[in-house]
Amino acid sequence: MAQHNCIFCAIVAGAAPASVIHDDAATLAFLDINPVTPGHLLVIPKRHASTLANPDPADGARLFVVAMQAAAALRSSGLRCEGVNFFLADGEAAGQEVFHVHLHVFPRFAGDGFRIVEGGIAHPSRADLDAIASRLRAALP
Amino acid sequence: MAQHNCIFCAIVAGAAPASVIHDDAATLAFLDINPVTPGHLLVIPKRHASTLANPDPADGARLFVVAMQAAAALRSSGLRCEGVNFFLADGEAAGQEVFHVHLHVFPRFAGDGFRIVEGGIAHPSRADLDAIASRLRAALP
Repeated sequence: MAQHNCIFCAIVAGAAPASVIHDDAATLAFLDINPVTPGHLLVIPKRHASTLANPDPADGARLFVVAMQAAAALRSSGLRCEGVNFFLADGEAAGQEVFHVHLHVFPRFAGDGFRIVEGGIAHPSRADLDAIASRLRAALP
Repeated sequence: MAQHNCIFCAIVAGAAPASVIHDDAATLAFLDINPVTPGHLLVIPKRHASTLANPDPADGARLFVVAMQAAAALRSSGLRCEGVNFFLADGEAAGQEVFHVHLHVFPRFAGDGFRIVEGGIAHPSRADLDAIASRLRAALP
């Protein structure tokens, strides 16, 4: 199941170091070594899945439940945490760097320096949105 | 169950317009009216939950599964989509604006103008990370 040369598979196997906060049959949660803010975590499926096209839906569902628990832990830990973001990058164009699915969970606080810059697209009309929705409904698995 | 003056509860009730792509017993997915990129979706639990402290874990799990399906639809829809991001803001300090839990799912492509700016914190030592992990393990629900 483990993927050769995958750093997250190595962490799951205990062959690479990690500061683990949660470990169950399907899921591991550990601290990011390049944190946005102190307490920044990654939640991963133990089974290797390079992108979102791969994981079992049950593994995906479990990621979110563990991330919710991690968010609650961040809020009650005493670490600076006035809010929490979840972020996932699927594919290189989305900023994915490690090709083993991972959900980022990180604390936010006033003045933490994190911000999002958007390209800025024209405000779509309802007709535009309905046309896109129609294409997406047809494309749903 | 619906929250007075909650725009997402109004959408769930059919009392406010939305361009819906998925509708099941627990979950609704519809297009964001202020998209980062064309195809930007929000996936919400139908039951009102203002923040992540509130939803049933099963509702949270279902959000992620629907978001995975939405990501697959974005990739096969013909819309410009070279990657996908998931983003969730929990709390005002994290950028939450509508206080009904919602998971953003949006397509990414080269030159889309979206980027993240980080505050930049000192690279933590393994001892620093282990100390934080210890606090978080103790704080897990």
